[in-house]
Amino acid sequence: MTKISIIGSGNVAYHLCKAFSFSGQALEIEIFGRNKTDLIQFHSEFKVKILTQMAEIDKTSIVFVCVSDDQIQTVINGFDKNQFVVYTSGTIALDFFKDNNKIGVFYPLQTFSKNREIDFTTVPILIEAKNLEFEKELVLIAKQISNHVELADSTKRQNIHLAAVFANNFTNHILHLSKTILDKNNINWSLLKPLIQESFLKINEGYEPKEIQTGPAKRNDFETIKMQEGKLNGLELDIYKLITKSIIKTYRK
Amino acid sequence: MTKISIIGSGNVAYHLCKAFSFSGQALEIEIFGRNKTDLIQFHSEFKVKILTQMAEIDKTSIVFVCVSDDQIQTVINGFDKNQFVVYTSGTIALDFFKDNNKIGVFYPLQTFSKNREIDFTTVPILIEAKNLEFEKELVLIAKQISNHVELADSTKRQNIHLAAVFANNFTNHILHLSKTILDKNNINWSLLKPLIQESFLKINEGYEPKEIQTGPAKRNDFETIKMQEGKLNGLELDIYKLITKSIIKTYRK
Repeated sequence: MTKISIIGSGNVAYHLCKAFSFSGQALEIEIFGRNKTDLIQFHSEFKVKILTQMAEIDKTSIVFVCVSDDQIQTVINGFDKNQFVVYTSGTIALDFFKDNNKIGVFYPLQTFSKNREIDFTTVPILIEAKNLEFEKELVLIAKQISNHVELADSTKRQNIHLAAVFANNFTNHILHLSKTILDKNNINWSLLKPLIQESFLKINEGYEPKEIQTGPAKRNDFETIKMQEGKLNGLELDIYKLITKSIIKTYRK
Repeated sequence: MTKISIIGSGNVAYHLCKAFSFSGQALEIEIFGRNKTDLIQFHSEFKVKILTQMAEIDKTSIVFVCVSDDQIQTVINGFDKNQFVVYTSGTIALDFFKDNNKIGVFYPLQTFSKNREIDFTTVPILIEAKNLEFEKELVLIAKQISNHVELADSTKRQNIHLAAVFANNFTNHILHLSKTILDKNNINWSLLKPLIQESFLKINEGYEPKEIQTGPAKRNDFETIKMQEGKLNGLELDIYKLITKSIIKTYRK
């Protein structure tokens, strides 16, 4: 039976733990993390064994290091070179771990919040490992929880992660700025929900963002742009000007 | 019977014409626009009368001016001061038309593409008019096609339009930039669909953007930020830096 040891108590650790625990596969799962309160919650929800020390981790298991990027190296260096270890970061290249052959990447391309249900079968998982046998094993494990598993080398994974930062992190922050404008003027944010829904539905139906762009910048409507700039200041104004410039450049013949 | 005369042959004209035509209300609809090919399509799809000249517009009808912002003034000035006229712009203030009392605003807060079905009953319509009786009539007309009708003065409408530019136009362009990064590296854009879907679902379920922000900037992960900046140049790099700065500022204690 494959044994999986998860390190971490954050959102990725939680959702991976949950996905493995409910995969219906013969997996034995143990977990170690700093936040003991969170781990007790894991234990109450899933069939997992909680470890009190990292040294208790089974030497024959595959360790999933689900900690923040700046902690990954320290955690991985704490293991014997014979332990199979994967990390879940989009950014850190596999080459970073030079003299370790039993290391791999298991990157779920999704944004996770702890209290939100995720259908893990739809989450793309990108796999990479130095050892080909281990890579094959990781693909099989990933397929137990996701219908979308593919190999990706570090460069490809980093490019996907960068695109994901734009597609999720940046759009989400732009929505926050949009809400801020309404908040300042005591206007209810729910007014924009149908617009946001329609924007999403178009993308979901397969329209490319470039073909559905609308608005003053797309129309070269400089009167409106000038008027809207007058309503903003600071970073919001800088962002308005820069994205407007980028839209105008995109549609310049 | 209320008579509605639409001027324009673009996306707003098309969807308003369609919504009025299928509202099941006793409305007589006529339309005049520059693009005759599009108007023939309107005629084939909806119960509307196509006018060949603006002068044919019925003096007793309410004219809906659905043209681009820079054309609105010219079109409205072409009418007798006794004609009831509304325009559909989010930006232009009603005060702009100083000595005209029979003018109003009928602003549908949505992004329209001609070949896409829209459920108009969900589209917020913002109404404003100088004449209170006319304003009431516009509200009644709007309620025939939408379940979300509210009064909004020009300042409020302009602020909502500005927020909508961020929520739709800017997020859509950021998605375009995200796709560009993948295109350049021959990676299929569909890989990001589950991530984009999840981002949208969270907003749709009522999460505020500020509470669901994730990513390197939110985590102050400067290693990743530096690495990602190294993969970008030009306007994309400027946008990455500026939005990252804005996210960091938002979460600074």
